[in-house]
Amino acid sequence: MFLRLLTAALLLLLVVPAQAEDGYDLWLRYRPMEAEGLAKYRPLARVVVAAKATSPTLDAAKAELTRGLSGLLNQAVGAGDLADGAVVIGTPESSAFVARLKLPLNGLGREGYLVRSVSLSGHAVTVIAANSDIGVLYGSFAFLRLIQTRQDIGHLDITSAPRMKFRLLNHWDNLDGTIERGYSGHSVFDWHKMPDYVDPRLTVMARADASVGINGISLNNVSADPWALSPMYIEKMAALADLLRPYGIRIYVAAKFSAPVELGKLKTADPADPEVQAWWKKEVDSIYRRIPDFGGFVVKANSEGQPGPRDYNRSQAEGANVIADALAPHGGTMFWRAFVYSEKDPTDRAKQAYNEFKPLDGKFRDNAFVQVKNGAIDFQPREPAHPLFGAMPKTNLALEVQLTKEYLGQTTHLVYLPELFKEVLDWDTEARGHGSTVAKVVDGSLEGHDTSAMVGVANIGDDRNWTGAQFSQADWYGFGRLAWNPALTSEQIAREWLGMTFTNNPAFAKAVVPMMMASREAVVDYMTPLGLHHLMATGHHYGPGPWVGDLPRPEQNPVYFHRADANGIGFDRTPSGSDATSQYAPPIAKLFSGPDIPDQYLLWFQHVGWDHKMRSGRSLWDELVVQYDKGIASVGEMRKTWTAMKPYVDAERWSQEAAFLAVQEKEARWWRDASIAYWEIFSHRPMPAGHAPPPHDVEYYKAIYFPYAPGRPGYTAGPFRNTPKDPTE
Amino acid sequence: MFLRLLTAALLLLLVVPAQAEDGYDLWLRYRPMEAEGLAKYRPLARVVVAAKATSPTLDAAKAELTRGLSGLLNQAVGAGDLADGAVVIGTPESSAFVARLKLPLNGLGREGYLVRSVSLSGHAVTVIAANSDIGVLYGSFAFLRLIQTRQDIGHLDITSAPRMKFRLLNHWDNLDGTIERGYSGHSVFDWHKMPDYVDPRLTVMARADASVGINGISLNNVSADPWALSPMYIEKMAALADLLRPYGIRIYVAAKFSAPVELGKLKTADPADPEVQAWWKKEVDSIYRRIPDFGGFVVKANSEGQPGPRDYNRSQAEGANVIADALAPHGGTMFWRAFVYSEKDPTDRAKQAYNEFKPLDGKFRDNAFVQVKNGAIDFQPREPAHPLFGAMPKTNLALEVQLTKEYLGQTTHLVYLPELFKEVLDWDTEARGHGSTVAKVVDGSLEGHDTSAMVGVANIGDDRNWTGAQFSQADWYGFGRLAWNPALTSEQIAREWLGMTFTNNPAFAKAVVPMMMASREAVVDYMTPLGLHHLMATGHHYGPGPWVGDLPRPEQNPVYFHRADANGIGFDRTPSGSDATSQYAPPIAKLFSGPDIPDQYLLWFQHVGWDHKMRSGRSLWDELVVQYDKGIASVGEMRKTWTAMKPYVDAERWSQEAAFLAVQEKEARWWRDASIAYWEIFSHRPMPAGHAPPPHDVEYYKAIYFPYAPGRPGYTAGPFRNTPKDPTE
Repeated sequence: MFLRLLTAALLLLLVVPAQAEDGYDLWLRYRPMEAEGLAKYRPLARVVVAAKATSPTLDAAKAELTRGLSGLLNQAVGAGDLADGAVVIGTPESSAFVARLKLPLNGLGREGYLVRSVSLSGHAVTVIAANSDIGVLYGSFAFLRLIQTRQDIGHLDITSAPRMKFRLLNHWDNLDGTIERGYSGHSVFDWHKMPDYVDPRLTVMARADASVGINGISLNNVSADPWALSPMYIEKMAALADLLRPYGIRIYVAAKFSAPVELGKLKTADPADPEVQAWWKKEVDSIYRRIPDFGGFVVKANSEGQPGPRDYNRSQAEGANVIADALAPHGGTMFWRAFVYSEKDPTDRAKQAYNEFKPLDGKFRDNAFVQVKNGAIDFQPREPAHPLFGAMPKTNLALEVQLTKEYLGQTTHLVYLPELFKEVLDWDTEARGHGSTVAKVVDGSLEGHDTSAMVGVANIGDDRNWTGAQFSQADWYGFGRLAWNPALTSEQIAREWLGMTFTNNPAFAKAVVPMMMASREAVVDYMTPLGLHHLMATGHHYGPGPWVGDLPRPEQNPVYFHRADANGIGFDRTPSGSDATSQYAPPIAKLFSGPDIPDQYLLWFQHVGWDHKMRSGRSLWDELVVQYDKGIASVGEMRKTWTAMKPYVDAERWSQEAAFLAVQEKEARWWRDASIAYWEIFSHRPMPAGHAPPPHDVEYYKAIYFPYAPGRPGYTAGPFRNTPKDPTE
Repeated sequence: MFLRLLTAALLLLLVVPAQAEDGYDLWLRYRPMEAEGLAKYRPLARVVVAAKATSPTLDAAKAELTRGLSGLLNQAVGAGDLADGAVVIGTPESSAFVARLKLPLNGLGREGYLVRSVSLSGHAVTVIAANSDIGVLYGSFAFLRLIQTRQDIGHLDITSAPRMKFRLLNHWDNLDGTIERGYSGHSVFDWHKMPDYVDPRLTVMARADASVGINGISLNNVSADPWALSPMYIEKMAALADLLRPYGIRIYVAAKFSAPVELGKLKTADPADPEVQAWWKKEVDSIYRRIPDFGGFVVKANSEGQPGPRDYNRSQAEGANVIADALAPHGGTMFWRAFVYSEKDPTDRAKQAYNEFKPLDGKFRDNAFVQVKNGAIDFQPREPAHPLFGAMPKTNLALEVQLTKEYLGQTTHLVYLPELFKEVLDWDTEARGHGSTVAKVVDGSLEGHDTSAMVGVANIGDDRNWTGAQFSQADWYGFGRLAWNPALTSEQIAREWLGMTFTNNPAFAKAVVPMMMASREAVVDYMTPLGLHHLMATGHHYGPGPWVGDLPRPEQNPVYFHRADANGIGFDRTPSGSDATSQYAPPIAKLFSGPDIPDQYLLWFQHVGWDHKMRSGRSLWDELVVQYDKGIASVGEMRKTWTAMKPYVDAERWSQEAAFLAVQEKEARWWRDASIAYWEIFSHRPMPAGHAPPPHDVEYYKAIYFPYAPGRPGYTAGPFRNTPKDPTE
């Protein structure tokens, strides 16, 4: 009998198909661990002891722990009574056990948590405690992460509280389901079916967001549609808010500044007009009636065609404040984007946001943030930090980074973005002397603000794996981790994420962590080395277009940015040029204007002769070529590494990434060849020894045309143009 | 030791999460069957004996059988040697076993198959044999279907060959990923990443298509984009063709008639122009160089703004033939759509296709089909069969039906379409006397054609469950089954599909088969009872719009079709009216013009007074109201049925359908209320006793506005309009 049962059971094991490893579960995979791990962890996580008093958030924590522990430990771990190896969760209010332990929760605020190994009624248990239910959920994810990454959990004494108050994703999703700059399918928000039907996959997204502490999402494109504020859509958003609420996620809406005209049928959206003020108050009041914990608004005003207060000769602060005032009684927050530039302003585009916002320092309401992109141009592979960081001490500044890889190769390029985020966070503004990092500006500590925010433009779509490529999940994960704690290293985050997402085999991490860490420098090298920037093709931003100079707005043309000529290349932003350097603190301004400028920012700030001697001893021209080829070589190394990782990764995820890396290498060559073929026109210099010339002349690359490259919704392909058969070869 | 192993194995079973039942596996679920079934089937399908000689198609058959049998029988069924209970597959050429059996394969053609229980070398085995590898694959799916639906497989003697030669799906997918009239997410074809990366989910689609015998798909919207024929896209399509080929699926492209101008840079697309003829030849030759088994083209010409031969005063036949001639040397086929109507033609829109095509009978090439929609208007909930069926005896006619529910409630309405398809197939054209059904016209038997085709407009998108709603999968399944064999009943197909998709529990089928069967009549009743048609809202076709009369093209206005006035309602198509009846064979023409016309076609063909006495004894007005309410009641019954089915269905699929049925009931009321509120303006009659008046007046329903209803790509929402908060309440 035993034998028959055993045979039956084993046979079943044999044929139950392994769950598809398609990336849908993100870093919350919870697959059974290796045998040694089981022996170690099983005794330490046998049962979940949840609070008697319950709430949707505590239920989510309990569900996550039972799901995660059951999966990882490959045994049923349910809720139950106190015992050795119990995991006790709760707040002092909800759990008598937690209350009895008198834990030091004071410094943890509303969202922090404590995880500690304690003795409780003679049982050795782990307690996950916090001041609020959401802290308990965050602590539960943290505890699972420890197991997922095979940390020791026998003697825990961990406390953690977020450094940023607002940790937000901005979804740039349109109401028709397309995504502005989306490369992971279409919107996960099926507005048409809501509120009647809310896709259950959104619960998976909410869990993922909460697992890294993301506590708010804006739902729609910042180039906003007034319909988003209509009663029909607020009703839909209310249904979504209900789904997200247990996970501590508040919803935000990108509001169109002219909504009082379009929705309210007013004659003006002038923020000084009392009718306009009344309209925003009424609109906001009605939203809060449906969504009591509504987060607030994101506004892109007077930027790239969007309406704004400047249309009425009011300042950006006056525009922000009229909406902030409507939100304030409800505890809502206004995120006002600083991404402005005007074709009517002949100054350097890199200077315009600073010029417009710096004088407004101190003029924004307490519940308003000025949301500043990491750099002054637009999410390039590398930018110096935005000069506004450190320059508006009396204003709440939110850091905005982009997770969707608009300018970084889009879906198929592996570029590990936390490495880029860290570069910005660690950037020393010198605003109050050494150590005045962007992180300290943004977390409020530098100027003693009591609020703080970090915002990521989401890379999430309805592709099965959420982010188009497996490795792009690391950017979502890493964004959340850094918004919680900017002091984490990107290497540590990569290691965590790999362990949770693929395997904890040390050989895998040893190979793949360095691959990820090198990937960001690679994209800089093969696209925009030595401080070059904004060289992409028009519209979809897919592939190179350094030759583009015919766009009606001068400051959208690549030629505006690289300024290549017979003498050299680069944008002179020193005092002899646009003097953008003067927007930085004096030590930085001096460095960037002088001969000691780091190579990586050289052509951002200086126009340099082709024969200029670089630190390497090579001429600028030779150095450029060397950098391009270094980028390609680096991608070649990444491919080799990934090929060697085949034994560690399931077939479906491995194959997809292998195919994408092949595209990345092909496209890296395309960037290099097209760029060099174009620069040659100006440099008239031979290729350095050992570096092959581009296989085609520049006209070949100019003829390449992609009528339907993704991420630019509403774009209609132009008339048919002949294009090389395989244009990226 | 045994005990420990057993415990470990059983624990594992306990915690390995059941695979999510999200509909992704379609009707190829292969979940382990109930215990009684295991005992019955396991001895009869123990091992797959595949041909020594192999091919990608035979490999697919072997893989499907091992996957399917292992899953269903919950034991490892692999490939192996001859034994009792073996499943022997192959052709006489590829398998010595099959050759030895000297099976009667002669009448089966290239695609037919034989499945028979035989004795082979003393072993009781099942043989799946065919004349070609694809027949073996089809037979393998048929064998699995028998087990999936719990048929007896102990004494099999089955042969089957398709009645239609071409069994095609037309995907109306745009190259930018949107889908014209798509309600299941976006396109499954990620053109941007192809050819470098082809989504593995397309293999699942190919298996599903092959499992019901679909042998070709066209890839793009019939409102075609010339880029689809560009070398860049042919290269991408070649990669897709490679994936589909093992499954017997050839690819077709929707070609734009003006492509010689757009791609070829010719001055004209006149089919009589030798340069144009040469261009098509060259284009087609180059396609076949990349895709040797390319299927051919679908063309929508001179229809809804598409270019066509009429632009050059050439006939539709001349247009079709220039392309057919280019395809002929390669064995390709031309599908030329008959869906034409012109705003310049003042005759009844229902008559125009007949008027234009009938005179061309016999003028089309042998490798061309005229592809005729099931009815003369446009995929309405109910239409009389298209008068062209039976009227073009010397022409290959393909039947085109629509699986995507453009006019039938879109995603959230459960409408079982095979019931509609059967109504058309069984329609007696009387062209050669009684029994001249559309099925016989289309399968070629009525006029002795040696080719035949049935085409479905696909309902497939990248939603996880492929078709938006679970029950829409049945339309895909049923289309394929009917294209293979139009003699199947829709009830039989429903039963099969339910067993494969949900459960074979008889109580489930007993409740749900009637629910599906009734669903088609329900949508007719609550949208367009008694022969009404084309009453939907403008553009997206979502919801009612019977009042619309301001569109510039008269024959696109609902008022053009219903002609309601103080006297009555309906389109007089009798000899006293447009005389469209005369396009049908005399017995039908007479029936439709006279008092014996069936109720269901009454208002399609006749303008009838509000007080006209119906068969029921009620006045037309009362009958209309009764029909609307019957439709709503029917949906109410469907909801009740589904609620009772909860024990039989997994939570995720059950909940989604329950939510959708709630929407369907709400929207059925919306259709009824809006329609009645509008008809009342003309009828001036009271509601019949026991039937509540609409809760709002017609202005309320007219104000309802959906800026982003799906399925109409490229559509930009109009300016903001105030609309009731929950417009469909």
